Amino acid sequence: MADQTVRAALEAFVSERDWGQFHTPENLAKSISIESAELLECFQWSPQADTERVRDELADVLTYCHLLAARIGVDPDEIVLDKLARTREKYPVDKARGRSTKYDQL
Amino acid sequence: MADQTVRAALEAFVSERDWGQFHTPENLAKSISIESAELLECFQWSPQADTERVRDELADVLTYCHLLAARIGVDPDEIVLDKLARTREKYPVDKARGRSTKYDQL
Amino acid sequence: MADQTVRAALEAFVSERDWGQFHTPENLAKSISIESAELLECFQWSPQADTERVRDELADVLTYCHLLAARIGVDPDEIVLDKLARTREKYPVDKARGRSTKYDQL
Amino acid sequence: MADQTVRAALEAFVSERDWGQFHTPENLAKSISIESAELLECFQWSPQADTERVRDELADVLTYCHLLAARIGVDPDEIVLDKLARTREKYPVDKARGRSTKYDQL
Repeated sequence: MADQTVRAALEAFVSERDWGQFHTPENLAKSISIESAELLECFQWSPQADTERVRDELADVLTYCHLLAARIGVDPDEIVLDKLARTREKYPVDKARGRSTKYDQL
Repeated sequence: MADQTVRAALEAFVSERDWGQFHTPENLAKSISIESAELLECFQWSPQADTERVRDELADVLTYCHLLAARIGVDPDEIVLDKLARTREKYPVDKARGRSTKYDQL
Repeated sequence: MADQTVRAALEAFVSERDWGQFHTPENLAKSISIESAELLECFQWSPQADTERVRDELADVLTYCHLLAARIGVDPDEIVLDKLARTREKYPVDKARGRSTKYDQL
Repeated sequence: MADQTVRAALEAFVSERDWGQFHTPENLAKSISIESAELLECFQWSPQADTERVRDELADVLTYCHLLAARIGVDPDEIVLDKLARTREKYPVDKARGRSTKYDQL
């Protein structure tokens, strides 16, 4: 289970500002896409990027992911581990090793 | 600091498949954007979405976020908390309360 | 076939600045995603958006779409019409009428 | 002004299926982001991509751009040319030549 410090800190931040009203799952999903694109912008013209800027934009994506997880009542670590268990089956080591091919074409 | 279970599980998953070679920061940033859009797709035509599907797509976004964090050597929880401290200053409670206005227009 | 004014204007703009070197298909695809997210940002917290801002962000998405079309040697109008012909078949009027369901679930 | 063939064909397609009800500006903006990510997916693990697939995904992005332009009552070609005129001023040839730097850092 995910460490509760982040969750508690985000909850306090949002509640102090009365921002829960804006945080519908749909708006949070839009926000995750928007912040992901700002992260991608670090790499727009080159594979090289400023690490500090990457870290900052990644933090923004993660923040909205945590808010959405809280909103739909799931634990961020648990859903990652649960999905990973299923992905393991879709990409067996012997077939997937060293290849970036999608599972349905393996 | 983030729980190390997720990190360790992802590292084992990637290393067993020799996928580290594909996980440049740039490719992971692209992947985060791609998965975010799949999450957004749950809400394409309606604010209502199937929670199970949302949980699954959110897990994919988080997975690539963890991989990028590991790749650039940062702790996912620490960068969220660090960014939150700065966001608190940009959005003081008395100005930001109940408003979705961007900080530079507050 | 698309009006050639836009294409010619964009070509002159890029060539005067010697920017063709940055416009690989991959970089243009990233740019389209980045600009799309800026368009989405107009609607981040509300379905209502400032029309002038929407128009501007849409122009940016279209600009990179035109540059990518030129780069891969296709006519933007032709590929839209060609795709439309195939989409018509995937979504027959009698099945798709008034429903936002994806074709594989119709 | 843009060729009216595409616009007329899209209008007929949408109206036959009674899909105008789903095409709010917000839903179209989400759709543009979603399709852009499918385009980006062609380049997820490599700068090389299958041209046919790129063409198809680009067509989808363009389709939703046309629908949004029609919905907000603007001509796609006009807004591109109008924006280009302003971008020319932000990136004067002598300063911007051969550099991918953002205008506010030129």
